[in-house]
Amino acid sequence: MFEVGLIRVLSTEDNEILNSHGRIIEQNFSNMEVESLAIKDQPKGIYDDNTEEIAKAKIIDLAKNKFSNKDVIIVSCAGDPALEELRNVMSIPIIGAGESAALLSKIYGNKVGIVGITRNLPKSYVKYIGKDVIGEPFIPNINNTTDLMKSYGLDKVLAHCENLKNKGAEVLVFACTGLSTTRFAPIIEKEIGLPVVDCVYAEAVFANAVCLRNSFYNIK
Amino acid sequence: MFEVGLIRVLSTEDNEILNSHGRIIEQNFSNMEVESLAIKDQPKGIYDDNTEEIAKAKIIDLAKNKFSNKDVIIVSCAGDPALEELRNVMSIPIIGAGESAALLSKIYGNKVGIVGITRNLPKSYVKYIGKDVIGEPFIPNINNTTDLMKSYGLDKVLAHCENLKNKGAEVLVFACTGLSTTRFAPIIEKEIGLPVVDCVYAEAVFANAVCLRNSFYNIK
Repeated sequence: MFEVGLIRVLSTEDNEILNSHGRIIEQNFSNMEVESLAIKDQPKGIYDDNTEEIAKAKIIDLAKNKFSNKDVIIVSCAGDPALEELRNVMSIPIIGAGESAALLSKIYGNKVGIVGITRNLPKSYVKYIGKDVIGEPFIPNINNTTDLMKSYGLDKVLAHCENLKNKGAEVLVFACTGLSTTRFAPIIEKEIGLPVVDCVYAEAVFANAVCLRNSFYNIK
Repeated sequence: MFEVGLIRVLSTEDNEILNSHGRIIEQNFSNMEVESLAIKDQPKGIYDDNTEEIAKAKIIDLAKNKFSNKDVIIVSCAGDPALEELRNVMSIPIIGAGESAALLSKIYGNKVGIVGITRNLPKSYVKYIGKDVIGEPFIPNINNTTDLMKSYGLDKVLAHCENLKNKGAEVLVFACTGLSTTRFAPIIEKEIGLPVVDCVYAEAVFANAVCLRNSFYNIK
């Protein structure tokens, strides 16, 4: 069993919400056991440069103080906050949701449509998809993850995805983990007919890959 | 159990050699069953543009006629011959060794050292690693995969890897599946102290990822 430390960047006291990403990972990979912890005092998560900077220090603190004995640590946010910094200070493999999703999307197609909620493309998507991004990266009229759960959430997501497909997208990739917890990926895939790469699924794939490799090579 | 069709681009009558990649995949992923087939009449594999063109038609033929019922097809060659072409003509997910290794390498570091046997960098490495390639991509004094198995093979590989590390490589990635069959990755990792991404391991990770996703979403 691989021991996974998962960091949520949205502060929450609700265990159901806290563990929602971990449950998706455990459902996909029966050899992974996920412990989730959230950073404190950021109930709205990360929404600008300032809140990202504040969050980074908390993420590094959590990783170093709570997860130093894990086989792998996941920063479960499409913005990959503190990903580089953690890799510089810890020897445990560190996986980011955004980087994983951006990389995994490339095996499904060259032209990539982004399904997210921020006007600025998260950095890993710029780095790995760059000029192959099709259309806008955000869902019109969806301002935050809470909007996704409203009655109109799915319709707005589907309209955005249809638009990206019409513009030439060959694959769709989430740029917000809120879309993972709503489990929209298979619905979009069936309605729109394009492969959909989910951030939490992608981070699970890479976390499992590094654990399996270390285990196979007998590296710890 | 996921059914994998694996295409070798080196013609062989020797079942041990034919199945060597499949065995590595099955050892890492107990949920995958690999059937391997090799293209005919190319005992030296692919070594220039002409042999690649000839091989491409044979790869497409094998995939369409022998593996159309598989859950995933792997083209087990770092040059990714016919990868794009197969994706255009088949609806089954198609995975390439080179693309998988290049993508997986990026989670281990920015600056990437290439461990291969050809002077030209295979296309997926150009596409995904590009300007972050450190040093030369080929092992000096190794001209083909057979040289790797000679008594001096490992020493020359280690010297190349040490050189790449000294030049600033943060991760090493194979650009030849011959290095997978010799199982050099864990030896290099221990001797040199950098993570090593093996092509056959990488193709297994992505093949497993697409199968798991299709299974989880109930897509076939």
